[in-house]
Amino acid sequence: MSRIDGRTPQQLRPVTIERGWSKHAEGSVLVSFGDTKVLCNASVTEGVPRWRKGSGEGWVTAEYAMLPRATNTRGDRESVKGRIGGRTHEISRLVGRSLRAVIDYKSLGENTIVLDCDVLQADGGTRTAAITGAYVALADAIAWAQGRKLIKPTRKPLTGTVSAVSVGIVAGVPLLDLCYEEDVRADTDMNVVCTGDGRFVEVQGTAEAEPFARDELDALLGLATAGCAELAELQRAALATTLER
Amino acid sequence: MSRIDGRTPQQLRPVTIERGWSKHAEGSVLVSFGDTKVLCNASVTEGVPRWRKGSGEGWVTAEYAMLPRATNTRGDRESVKGRIGGRTHEISRLVGRSLRAVIDYKSLGENTIVLDCDVLQADGGTRTAAITGAYVALADAIAWAQGRKLIKPTRKPLTGTVSAVSVGIVAGVPLLDLCYEEDVRADTDMNVVCTGDGRFVEVQGTAEAEPFARDELDALLGLATAGCAELAELQRAALATTLER
Amino acid sequence: MSRIDGRTPQQLRPVTIERGWSKHAEGSVLVSFGDTKVLCNASVTEGVPRWRKGSGEGWVTAEYAMLPRATNTRGDRESVKGRIGGRTHEISRLVGRSLRAVIDYKSLGENTIVLDCDVLQADGGTRTAAITGAYVALADAIAWAQGRKLIKPTRKPLTGTVSAVSVGIVAGVPLLDLCYEEDVRADTDMNVVCTGDGRFVEVQGTAEAEPFARDELDALLGLATAGCAELAELQRAALATTLER
Amino acid sequence: MSRIDGRTPQQLRPVTIERGWSKHAEGSVLVSFGDTKVLCNASVTEGVPRWRKGSGEGWVTAEYAMLPRATNTRGDRESVKGRIGGRTHEISRLVGRSLRAVIDYKSLGENTIVLDCDVLQADGGTRTAAITGAYVALADAIAWAQGRKLIKPTRKPLTGTVSAVSVGIVAGVPLLDLCYEEDVRADTDMNVVCTGDGRFVEVQGTAEAEPFARDELDALLGLATAGCAELAELQRAALATTLER
Amino acid sequence: MSRIDGRTPQQLRPVTIERGWSKHAEGSVLVSFGDTKVLCNASVTEGVPRWRKGSGEGWVTAEYAMLPRATNTRGDRESVKGRIGGRTHEISRLVGRSLRAVIDYKSLGENTIVLDCDVLQADGGTRTAAITGAYVALADAIAWAQGRKLIKPTRKPLTGTVSAVSVGIVAGVPLLDLCYEEDVRADTDMNVVCTGDGRFVEVQGTAEAEPFARDELDALLGLATAGCAELAELQRAALATTLER
Amino acid sequence: MSRIDGRTPQQLRPVTIERGWSKHAEGSVLVSFGDTKVLCNASVTEGVPRWRKGSGEGWVTAEYAMLPRATNTRGDRESVKGRIGGRTHEISRLVGRSLRAVIDYKSLGENTIVLDCDVLQADGGTRTAAITGAYVALADAIAWAQGRKLIKPTRKPLTGTVSAVSVGIVAGVPLLDLCYEEDVRADTDMNVVCTGDGRFVEVQGTAEAEPFARDELDALLGLATAGCAELAELQRAALATTLER
Repeated sequence: MSRIDGRTPQQLRPVTIERGWSKHAEGSVLVSFGDTKVLCNASVTEGVPRWRKGSGEGWVTAEYAMLPRATNTRGDRESVKGRIGGRTHEISRLVGRSLRAVIDYKSLGENTIVLDCDVLQADGGTRTAAITGAYVALADAIAWAQGRKLIKPTRKPLTGTVSAVSVGIVAGVPLLDLCYEEDVRADTDMNVVCTGDGRFVEVQGTAEAEPFARDELDALLGLATAGCAELAELQRAALATTLER
Repeated sequence: MSRIDGRTPQQLRPVTIERGWSKHAEGSVLVSFGDTKVLCNASVTEGVPRWRKGSGEGWVTAEYAMLPRATNTRGDRESVKGRIGGRTHEISRLVGRSLRAVIDYKSLGENTIVLDCDVLQADGGTRTAAITGAYVALADAIAWAQGRKLIKPTRKPLTGTVSAVSVGIVAGVPLLDLCYEEDVRADTDMNVVCTGDGRFVEVQGTAEAEPFARDELDALLGLATAGCAELAELQRAALATTLER
Repeated sequence: MSRIDGRTPQQLRPVTIERGWSKHAEGSVLVSFGDTKVLCNASVTEGVPRWRKGSGEGWVTAEYAMLPRATNTRGDRESVKGRIGGRTHEISRLVGRSLRAVIDYKSLGENTIVLDCDVLQADGGTRTAAITGAYVALADAIAWAQGRKLIKPTRKPLTGTVSAVSVGIVAGVPLLDLCYEEDVRADTDMNVVCTGDGRFVEVQGTAEAEPFARDELDALLGLATAGCAELAELQRAALATTLER
Repeated sequence: MSRIDGRTPQQLRPVTIERGWSKHAEGSVLVSFGDTKVLCNASVTEGVPRWRKGSGEGWVTAEYAMLPRATNTRGDRESVKGRIGGRTHEISRLVGRSLRAVIDYKSLGENTIVLDCDVLQADGGTRTAAITGAYVALADAIAWAQGRKLIKPTRKPLTGTVSAVSVGIVAGVPLLDLCYEEDVRADTDMNVVCTGDGRFVEVQGTAEAEPFARDELDALLGLATAGCAELAELQRAALATTLER
Repeated sequence: MSRIDGRTPQQLRPVTIERGWSKHAEGSVLVSFGDTKVLCNASVTEGVPRWRKGSGEGWVTAEYAMLPRATNTRGDRESVKGRIGGRTHEISRLVGRSLRAVIDYKSLGENTIVLDCDVLQADGGTRTAAITGAYVALADAIAWAQGRKLIKPTRKPLTGTVSAVSVGIVAGVPLLDLCYEEDVRADTDMNVVCTGDGRFVEVQGTAEAEPFARDELDALLGLATAGCAELAELQRAALATTLER
Repeated sequence: MSRIDGRTPQQLRPVTIERGWSKHAEGSVLVSFGDTKVLCNASVTEGVPRWRKGSGEGWVTAEYAMLPRATNTRGDRESVKGRIGGRTHEISRLVGRSLRAVIDYKSLGENTIVLDCDVLQADGGTRTAAITGAYVALADAIAWAQGRKLIKPTRKPLTGTVSAVSVGIVAGVPLLDLCYEEDVRADTDMNVVCTGDGRFVEVQGTAEAEPFARDELDALLGLATAGCAELAELQRAALATTLER
């Protein structure tokens, strides 16, 4: 059985991770999973939100959004509607939690890093691409802050790496990294966030059409774990080069 | 090892399902999981949202909210703040999706059922209590509508039953149905929604402190499946009695 | 002439005042006037709003709201609409003013008490039930704060008691404590708030259909004064028992 | 005892009612009660709100607002804050109800009249000035609509006249038509809306400091009734002249 | 060729500048350009916005708004809609910038002056009338503050005067100070703000129908410069009299 | 005198116009003026806003926004703040007006084209880059719609071309196409929108520090006209190639 774009069920789309995309942000990554393109900018500011002041600990948060025409039909701007939709809220929270899973707040010191993940073009898997790219932007921002002595160079604010991928069951077959057309036809859709050592940070599975059985869940988890490992390798490779500033 | 309230790791809190709580709603259930109390009101209206008109199919949606002093410290009202928070949005969407998983839209006809799940008192597991109670309110509302011939009495709009429970790992031990104090100390927190036949509708696991390994995930899924089955039995028992209107 | 529910014109509906309803709030009362049920939670916090800091005086305020399906047909949530309606605003202000009429701010010290009055089920007279119940919750919250020495135990922050009732003219007859069906058919509708010593805190009369004459107003004031006195007695009785915490 | 501005307790401030103030509105009145100046514009539009369509009946509504510097210290604009305050809401509703008390919806036909009452300068009693002026603007707008045959010239959409005044107890003395300085020092503050035949449309009394006794209430009602009658006479005089358009 | 109201192309409408209109504001001007009437109130407060604290410099800002029935058909209130429209935002910013062009922040000291420009009646050119009137209100407010020693009497916070006028091309002819009917028919519409010494503060030209050529632009700039000079003279004359407070 | 980036006063920054950037939009252009990068997506939909229905005429509108980290320091998202800022509103309106200046609504038929201009990286002149790029996206969208027969292929909905550039006076010297650092130091800042035949669509000049004299204005207009002509040439060149879809 061959997929719509010719991939095998276990195959990721072509993934690119372009660092230093924007000249302003302390970490800036344009990540693409096939035709899904997300710009992940990390902004470092001294200080923390009020509820955390004096704790000696830092904070990491994220905001996810889509350009109005990132999708096939234009969506209304949330700024014009005057409120953030439920989906946007949910994904922003997911990205933030995923990154915080590999942060040592003490080592960060009282600094805040905001990850802005803006989807420039969407073709399925935007939230998992956002997490995967944001991790790299976060790493670059921390390196920048350590270079400036904002964060002590001897500390290790990152306790690991984190990547994410979507999996789903389409026409009875478990598939890795769904593109939009597959996503629409999926019976079950799952987003999985893993650390580089293969443990889980988030598992979010949803029955879109039919409820799913335990063995299906097991198959999806296996696919996702392998996919995340492959993405972790791509993140490591991307970060191995020197970033010109 | 004994839990804070003396339960075994595999034990649910005392669960009560009180039908017919409000005199106005077509289905009205006060559900409690220990000290967590959620009022689930189902409202039936003829017609469907605009995007569904003419389809011959119905719609089911949900709104979740907390009273300001449902929790230990008072929270600001979202109506006063002028916007719904991310958590509220996320849970409302989860409840709605979970119920729609057992709905046959065709059998419902062009009717809409809204489930309002208002947490009167919170002690952990409010979203899973909401889903479990809302299912019963939904069943009552459908019965009411079939009694009025709004929905054809020969149709079966419910394709199954749905219940939900939280599980988590506290101090290394997988526990069923966390109360608030356990939830706060959990390393991993998972909400699982199952159909009465033991399949999954939603699996949402989050590493609160440490990422979790596959065997931990497996243990949690096992606990949750058993807990949901027990809750399904309680739902069936509650619905077995005749509701005075 | 007999009323819809068999009462005499001068008769209140059955009133119950259940203290200690919620385990979290410092004062928590479920009050019912017939089928109208309002949960009144009092929350004590140290400190006062900014404009009052350093004055040595406390503050009491209230927020009133209805659950979406408290009424016969479902209302949209104000949190979802993103704005508080005029009626909600107006009643919240009325409840707050009514309670402040019996508060000695100096004795309260720089503490704030917020009264949340959430209508769980509505059948007319929700605002007057809210005031009557909130007074009892307020008294419990003050006792709690005095027990904790947050408020000096020798002070008397309450200068009196306060209760409220609706009256109206239906088919030419002045009636006490209108239920919803009576309220809808009333020519004149009046809400009266009295102190325990029989003086007025608020008098709000509105001609719903026909303007009303002075003798009608006098008759309504007489009915309301007697009703408030009866409610004050019920409040005293409710507070006479010891509250288990 | 003489008042701050030399009036007797039973005396209104100088009242002026200037018709035809704006060239655009169908009825436009600049009303002043002493230094309180309110511009009342009546706008006639064909058609009614959706919930009233097909009824053959019209609708009258009102919106009250203050310019930011109508008062002694500048207030923030509600348009900039993005929400209407409770006081604004409450007064808008009061003005609308008061005018509707003298409207025969059938005679109005399916037309809507909106009364915009904008306080240009405030010195106490803005809501009662607004009602008194808005009645005159409403009468002019109806006459305009009858001149254009929008409303049948043979009908009488106005069933009476309506005026309003504030009263209060200051230093133990009941006073008519409080200016701002008196209002601030009042123990009790009452707004009364009467029809031209001396009946009540609204009675809203509030204990600002001390609860008030029945005889104080009676004294205030007497003062207010006389004040409203005087205002009704001024309205009649103002409407007796021919309005140039 | 004669204009709709009989003016020559180079002629302003009758302009009046009435100082001391409101008793509360530190500067209060009712300005009229023909039937356009704008109330400009200047409010002085000690202190500056947070971002300017400690700078020793003051701040001047402006808010522009229209009454709902200032225009021929009633517009919805922005406070009720819950958001400021683009046009309102744009004009508020223009008025603020124009006034700041003649302010020496150092001489102002850490004081803030807010100019509220509320259009009571509109007939074209409301923004330019607002600027012209607001300048006079600003001058009065500064004089008031210097009288109170809030601003040092020896300083000159105003570095010049500022006035504004609209110009446009109607049926091929460049016209000064368009009234509403001319504005609607204009091919090109331009607002010009000048200092008293004839230099430009703002030039905003828009092709409403046809793009305009350089010579047309030159003609419009000539007309506008002359108009602004005439308005500057009227401002000087208005400020030459003594203002009774 | 040499500029910060070595340009002559009359020299544009390197300009690139990349068509077909996004695969979803009917017209999609990534335009860059030096380090300023704006993504301009044109979305075609059948039908027009309600107020235009049945006219046989189309509509073109635009929305401008900045990514939070497009600038040197992160800005809050307007969607999170719940309201659009004045600057955003103003520029959106400017872009829309500029494009409509070259549209023949009749030829467009009852279709709507929305131009989304999202600034990915800002370095001065974002609004003028947006207009220049949006024109090309608009042209591509119209060609697409004519290819689909949505718009009659024989019609010419574009009556000309439109481009825009900023000019300003820095340290006494008039400069073309200011980068951010120049913009900050400019005494006068002007944005000029021209048609391809050299006429003006918009002229918006603002004195940032000193008011400007007529000869300075003339010098700026000259620079801007030449710059727009050069940009028009670049637009023509970009559109001369065949776009792969």
